[in-house]
Amino acid sequence: MSLGNVEITGAFFKRYYDLVTSEMMPYQWAALNDEVPGAEKSHAIENIKIAAGVSAGEFYGRIFQDSDFAKWLEALGYCLQKGDLREFESKADEVIGYIEKAQQPDGYFNTYFQLTAPERKFTNLFEAHELYCAGHFIEAAVSYYEATGKTQALDIARRLADMIDRRFGAEDGKTRGYAGHQEIELALLKLYETTGEGRYLELARYFLDERGRQPHFFRLEWEKRNGYSEYSQRRQELPEDFTYNQAHKPVREQEGAVGHAVRAVYMYAAMAEAARLTGDDTLFEACERLFDNITQKQMYVTGSIGSTSNGEAFTFDYDLPEATNYSETCASIGLIFFAHNMLKSKKDSKYADAIELALYNTVLASIQADGKSYLYVNPMEALPEASAKNPDRAHVKTVRQPWYGCACCPPNIARLLSSLEKYVYSYEDGTLYVHQYIASRATFDMQQQATLDASSRATFDMQQQATLDASSRAKFDTQPQATLDASSRAKFDAQPQASLAIEMLCDMPGSADVNIKLLEGACEVVALRTPGWSAGATFTLNGAAITPEIIDGYAYIPTTGSGDVICASFSLTVDLIRANTAVRNASGKVALRRGPLVYCLEEEDNANNLHRLTIKKGGNIALQERSIAGIDFIGIEAEGAIESDSGSGLYTAAEKTVEPTGLSFIPYFLWGNRTPGEMICWIREAT
Amino acid sequence: MSLGNVEITGAFFKRYYDLVTSEMMPYQWAALNDEVPGAEKSHAIENIKIAAGVSAGEFYGRIFQDSDFAKWLEALGYCLQKGDLREFESKADEVIGYIEKAQQPDGYFNTYFQLTAPERKFTNLFEAHELYCAGHFIEAAVSYYEATGKTQALDIARRLADMIDRRFGAEDGKTRGYAGHQEIELALLKLYETTGEGRYLELARYFLDERGRQPHFFRLEWEKRNGYSEYSQRRQELPEDFTYNQAHKPVREQEGAVGHAVRAVYMYAAMAEAARLTGDDTLFEACERLFDNITQKQMYVTGSIGSTSNGEAFTFDYDLPEATNYSETCASIGLIFFAHNMLKSKKDSKYADAIELALYNTVLASIQADGKSYLYVNPMEALPEASAKNPDRAHVKTVRQPWYGCACCPPNIARLLSSLEKYVYSYEDGTLYVHQYIASRATFDMQQQATLDASSRATFDMQQQATLDASSRAKFDTQPQATLDASSRAKFDAQPQASLAIEMLCDMPGSADVNIKLLEGACEVVALRTPGWSAGATFTLNGAAITPEIIDGYAYIPTTGSGDVICASFSLTVDLIRANTAVRNASGKVALRRGPLVYCLEEEDNANNLHRLTIKKGGNIALQERSIAGIDFIGIEAEGAIESDSGSGLYTAAEKTVEPTGLSFIPYFLWGNRTPGEMICWIREAT
Repeated sequence: MSLGNVEITGAFFKRYYDLVTSEMMPYQWAALNDEVPGAEKSHAIENIKIAAGVSAGEFYGRIFQDSDFAKWLEALGYCLQKGDLREFESKADEVIGYIEKAQQPDGYFNTYFQLTAPERKFTNLFEAHELYCAGHFIEAAVSYYEATGKTQALDIARRLADMIDRRFGAEDGKTRGYAGHQEIELALLKLYETTGEGRYLELARYFLDERGRQPHFFRLEWEKRNGYSEYSQRRQELPEDFTYNQAHKPVREQEGAVGHAVRAVYMYAAMAEAARLTGDDTLFEACERLFDNITQKQMYVTGSIGSTSNGEAFTFDYDLPEATNYSETCASIGLIFFAHNMLKSKKDSKYADAIELALYNTVLASIQADGKSYLYVNPMEALPEASAKNPDRAHVKTVRQPWYGCACCPPNIARLLSSLEKYVYSYEDGTLYVHQYIASRATFDMQQQATLDASSRATFDMQQQATLDASSRAKFDTQPQATLDASSRAKFDAQPQASLAIEMLCDMPGSADVNIKLLEGACEVVALRTPGWSAGATFTLNGAAITPEIIDGYAYIPTTGSGDVICASFSLTVDLIRANTAVRNASGKVALRRGPLVYCLEEEDNANNLHRLTIKKGGNIALQERSIAGIDFIGIEAEGAIESDSGSGLYTAAEKTVEPTGLSFIPYFLWGNRTPGEMICWIREAT
Repeated sequence: MSLGNVEITGAFFKRYYDLVTSEMMPYQWAALNDEVPGAEKSHAIENIKIAAGVSAGEFYGRIFQDSDFAKWLEALGYCLQKGDLREFESKADEVIGYIEKAQQPDGYFNTYFQLTAPERKFTNLFEAHELYCAGHFIEAAVSYYEATGKTQALDIARRLADMIDRRFGAEDGKTRGYAGHQEIELALLKLYETTGEGRYLELARYFLDERGRQPHFFRLEWEKRNGYSEYSQRRQELPEDFTYNQAHKPVREQEGAVGHAVRAVYMYAAMAEAARLTGDDTLFEACERLFDNITQKQMYVTGSIGSTSNGEAFTFDYDLPEATNYSETCASIGLIFFAHNMLKSKKDSKYADAIELALYNTVLASIQADGKSYLYVNPMEALPEASAKNPDRAHVKTVRQPWYGCACCPPNIARLLSSLEKYVYSYEDGTLYVHQYIASRATFDMQQQATLDASSRATFDMQQQATLDASSRAKFDTQPQATLDASSRAKFDAQPQASLAIEMLCDMPGSADVNIKLLEGACEVVALRTPGWSAGATFTLNGAAITPEIIDGYAYIPTTGSGDVICASFSLTVDLIRANTAVRNASGKVALRRGPLVYCLEEEDNANNLHRLTIKKGGNIALQERSIAGIDFIGIEAEGAIESDSGSGLYTAAEKTVEPTGLSFIPYFLWGNRTPGEMICWIREAT
């Protein structure tokens, strides 16, 4: 399978990528270096320098402070791969140098523990985020290596991974532990794919399979450290079970999504990738079950997840309160990782649909139009007074916050938007899949791909593992395996040995017409995703109407050869969406959707106390070209009604006075870009 | 003003009083003595014994553990006044004896501080509940003294109050402090009324007026103790302001109800009483404003208050979420105290309406039909799965809890229900007011009352105070002022020197016909409250229709003399109640009310996923005689519809399938007395 060498050309997402390079990455670099006046102290780079012995001082920050630089470095790698932000490469190299200095001879690297509590290293995986930080550094190192070909960061990452591999596992003499916050699993799988080192795949699989085993590791290590908590710095009881960490039972037995939403989707994403890489059907079945549970029972209409701020967590099926939802940006990003990894194994449009939904309606909604502020919580309704005065809604910000307020979501947004091209296509066995309708040019090296496919689709067995182990035990030095190096360098060659070059023209979300041209070379089949929001679709091949076979939401179109032009027109109607009857909060309400975009009502276009509004059942719908903060969009005008102010009494037997009114909807992702005020997604429907 | 000597005769409330004497009081006594197998440890009596030196051991319990016995003792006093529970009098005397032994020579008594931290007494009024516990003991002592005429407890209470008076005040050498949890103010006002000691009135007024002054006392004492917190036992920051404690600004400047709801209403109740006793108009105006704010902007349709569990607090106007409301039983009891004290000064039916609403629909709802379990939080909707699985709703219990789970609300229920007769009537200046339609017999000593009225209505001035002070400085010993003793003993004389004896027959809430007979003596006017829920009313005097003047919701009926029979018929229709348009959660919904009772829907009578139901606009309504757990009531049957199960998808553009269905409502106060399940109060209205 190849994700291709893709260049996004469409203005809509290009604009967001430009925000990454022009605003987010430079700002974050300054923030990591405590060079933003008035910003919250980061100290992330300084912690590294102190650990390296090149700076004096004390550790400052959260237990996972190291991950802030790592996520930034990962995003930098994606930008460098596209030839951008080269001015940051030497700065990154400098910090990587410090990390190399700080890394212990055994491979350990974590500034929190090295500087504040070396005696407590690996005594508290439940809380302490050491494997989480290691994971983020490994992901960064892979990205940076793939961008630059430089191995310094990858060497550090490998020594880190090797140390973890020596320390954790089911074998005698190793600790049978795993991370309280999943992330190392995804990272090890990437490290395996980049290095070919089977031990990393095996370790990732161990971490997944060990999870939730009895006697419970989190309890055993808690007893061993006499209950000492790294957060409260004193003895603290454990929770009754470990659903928060998805460690309440073995991962294959987990029926529905539970606990902290980001932890959950990071783990599911790793499970999906491990299942693919090892041909593990039962693990993949668990992933399918968990994915369906999320998207069919626990996901907001905007593709966000996490129904409570309490633990930033899933609650239970169909429990989707609007006033207090958490819907963390990072969780939707994790959901995108999960869906993407599922899609690698199974071409079902529901995975690509979830990516599209979460991308347009949560990830983009989290970003102010100018790229300078962000939301961690993406509310289903905004009521500034409630956020200010009802502590149950204190987590719901009704104005986006500057990036430095917390360092978690913004770099995650940066790493997603700077690697968005990976989500557009995949090429497998002669078929070019188009998953996302993002205008772009792409090339696919089909020959190289075939080889990689063979190895990655092979069932994972111990025999094969032994071979990989042998090769990987050879010290990974500055002269890595010639083959790997050659292939990975090839990816960044300006003229790759491409067998297929294509171009996709489209103007999503403004229109739903797609035009794909095979510029050079040819594939046997082009498979186009038919989006879940499109009631029907028409296709042409070189101008002639065709009726392709549609399997699992993909239209499979056999090609005639190079130069082929395939067009698809999807149906871009305004739909009134109803939630499943079991969803309490959406009873009697509808949400508007047009194509990939969910819409909302803002106070600025309508009225205050937006809950007074109803939309007329069967009323007229009109479209209007509009613009907010320089972003053009199609607004929706609808017929509705508004309850009049009912005076000063609180309860009355009198009926309310209702008057007709026009309703004006904007895409949800653009909410909060004008005067701060109220916003709702769901509106009551009335006759 | 006299509240009369009242005997409740109607079965409805008599039944609840019998639960107090048969279930609640004996159970609580056993719980306080740790004699309930399997119950949570109380240790309240044992703490007192240890402090008295008659038992060995350590303090156990919460910082306000002393108040548990005090509230029980207060309720015992009310029962003894009616000749009930005499078997507990010697037990109470024994504990009072221990308290006398434990009390310090200076009057201080608080087992938490005496046993665990004598050096920190009165260093942390913000958190430490010393004045709160003192207040509850004083209220108990007054009740016990009025019931028994014994002065031992009252002497202790007085020494406690004198110590507090010596320590706190605006005078040089005193600490300008006040309590973090209001209660002492109400207690001192009761102590003043019982002893005639003006210093107690003055001290209560000081505590109220000092509150919220700058520089802020809570900050000054916090600085003095270096931020030490009695709860966390370490340094802790103060909140940004003190709205939680209603100490954010002077009480007269407070515009709306804020903060912890119980603290708030206890304070407002004291303000109302202090305003009456001192003729303080500006204080009374603040009370009117706060009362209107609560009842017109921050009260649930069932008369409960507290929109968030976070701080058990008010949030802001019209913010009345249904899924996460707190609605603590104690807060509604405090609201009843507040309304009752307002009514003493101003005869406006809105105060009596609030008492009735909160009494029937929150206080009674908090009690299981068998009197053996209770609710602290009175939910507007019950969804067992949500309470179990969404931590935002963990405070909402969908099954009443045994009384020993927490010792706060149940004794408060006991002291209210055992003194309910105080809320029925008042007699002033020849007018007998009927505030609550509770079948009863009553006698009023009009002569005695006139004298007390004269003194209590006098404007409070320093001159008068000086006189009172002089008299009260005489040591309050075992021979209290002859006059007071004589008058208070007279109250419990089996044959008081009554000028007026009346009987009220009525069968509320089952019917709304009221029959009042002047048995002996006569008053000039009988003023009957016309309930807010009654659209109209008809009256007869000795069989002849009359049209009395109605002022502020009271129908003033001049009498002809002894033997008069006055009848009133109120309108007992089923009303579909709508909330003010500004209430978000009730948009498009109605609640059913019939007379004083608010109704609800339970899963057992209807369906699960109750939110699927709608009530038909203008549909038929029928009444049905029913019974739950031995309590007869009128059920309401209505026409409605139910959405069919919409299958497995989460979001769809398809319309929902709706089918007609019957709806079956029961009074809210009876919810949760059958199979545990769902309950809702508000239902969507549909055409």
